[in-house]
Amino acid sequence: MATVTDAKLVFLLVALVAGTSCTAWDLSGLRMPTERAVQAAAERLVEGADAAAPLIHALRPLVGSAGDLGRRGGVPCDSWRLAVETYNKRDWRTVPAKCEKYVGNYMMGGHYRSDSRAVINEAIAYAESLKLGGNGKEVWVFDIDETSLSNLPYYATHGFGTTLYNSTSFNEYVLEGSAPVLPETQRLFNKLISLGIKPVFLTGRTENQRAITVANLRRQGYSGWMNLLLKPVGFKASAIAYKSGERKKLQDAGFVIVGNIGDQWSDILGAPEGARTFKLPDPLYYIG
Amino acid sequence: MATVTDAKLVFLLVALVAGTSCTAWDLSGLRMPTERAVQAAAERLVEGADAAAPLIHALRPLVGSAGDLGRRGGVPCDSWRLAVETYNKRDWRTVPAKCEKYVGNYMMGGHYRSDSRAVINEAIAYAESLKLGGNGKEVWVFDIDETSLSNLPYYATHGFGTTLYNSTSFNEYVLEGSAPVLPETQRLFNKLISLGIKPVFLTGRTENQRAITVANLRRQGYSGWMNLLLKPVGFKASAIAYKSGERKKLQDAGFVIVGNIGDQWSDILGAPEGARTFKLPDPLYYIG
Repeated sequence: MATVTDAKLVFLLVALVAGTSCTAWDLSGLRMPTERAVQAAAERLVEGADAAAPLIHALRPLVGSAGDLGRRGGVPCDSWRLAVETYNKRDWRTVPAKCEKYVGNYMMGGHYRSDSRAVINEAIAYAESLKLGGNGKEVWVFDIDETSLSNLPYYATHGFGTTLYNSTSFNEYVLEGSAPVLPETQRLFNKLISLGIKPVFLTGRTENQRAITVANLRRQGYSGWMNLLLKPVGFKASAIAYKSGERKKLQDAGFVIVGNIGDQWSDILGAPEGARTFKLPDPLYYIG
Repeated sequence: MATVTDAKLVFLLVALVAGTSCTAWDLSGLRMPTERAVQAAAERLVEGADAAAPLIHALRPLVGSAGDLGRRGGVPCDSWRLAVETYNKRDWRTVPAKCEKYVGNYMMGGHYRSDSRAVINEAIAYAESLKLGGNGKEVWVFDIDETSLSNLPYYATHGFGTTLYNSTSFNEYVLEGSAPVLPETQRLFNKLISLGIKPVFLTGRTENQRAITVANLRRQGYSGWMNLLLKPVGFKASAIAYKSGERKKLQDAGFVIVGNIGDQWSDILGAPEGARTFKLPDPLYYIG
């Protein structure tokens, strides 16, 4: 019999949660597993020494219920998120209600941040590898919302994407001009300027939000962008059509779009995409 | 003081591991957190009631070391995997050595399977939504390795992608014809046939592997494909160029590629891509 004090048990729980690849907040996801799941986990632990054996389990057809995997039509929230990030899942309107806590944990813990960091590390390595023409024509396109600035303070109080988009309350939030910086993106932004590549903001925000957007960007430490392209009020087009059209204008004006980064696939699809594109994570909403 | 028996403690550990969104195998990832990480986790637990407060932590610039996030240049293995799956990370040659256990756990536990399931659910929903022309011209392109068949038995005994590709030993494995089915993909394959959409295999495997590939596919329960397109021996071209060229031929022959599924971005990039593409997970290797 092992004797564990309350303090040690709490430490053990915190250590487990903080020490796995789960977010540090993932206590909400804890639940008692089914007897079968425990049995299966135990078998895998025992069989761990023989790497090929559990294959038989992993790849054989699923029959009946086997925990998350067996839920009729359902997938675990992290598989939903991967399907979103890889553009397998499209045209979704809200985060599944059952995934509110998962998405909240993901966004508020370290997971979102480290996923963003992995993207920015690649973007910086790519930027540093470029040979520039020396004529100052290279630009890099940045989306704003969930790319350069974060609306997480809004979404954290609006169900983490589980409720339908409300333009009234969201625009009120935008007009506060208080959206915090996404520090990883800012690291790329500043690196590009130091390399001589000019940042261009290209956003679905509308022209009448220019002043507050500039103020918000400046307050959060952004400076030195070449251009801030906002959508004309009342402009009707898909995000892909609007943004690729604006990139075409940049290209026609003699600029070379060496990079393009956004949180939505609609930021980075549609010719000219830019010589290389980067997709930041965003499990909160979808813009087609 | 709480008293916990050994059996209960083991159950608790198994329950924690099986019950979170981590893979059921993630024991290897457990490690003692730094004092600072524990402190931060504790703070987040306390502050959990106020959803906006931890934002300040999550988004402020990182200074110094903070566990995984602070590792110089490094990112956690799940952020590496997401960067791979979203095509942010390209042209990589091997899985990082430190991620061998992570990738092993991912592939052998339920995680790979549920991520695949999420993709296939979307593909089937899309296929069911199609209005077919009634002339039998609709086809769906399937990659083979890590899409229709799994080479996990090989990779499980070769470091889960952490060692450089060895064409000799891999081709020996292929010639055994023993690669197991990926059951989620087979579910899509059979659904398409029932809907009247013709599956076409398009693979980087070479023509001299046709017989064993057919035998392997049949043994694993595949039947009813329209065509199996293998690469001519000695054919030199990138995967994107080869595969998009073959898709062009299909299109020129009057077929409509309504879908295209693979585990590599090089399976689904390059016009004509197909009306809709699906990216299955693959953290084991990269084909450009």
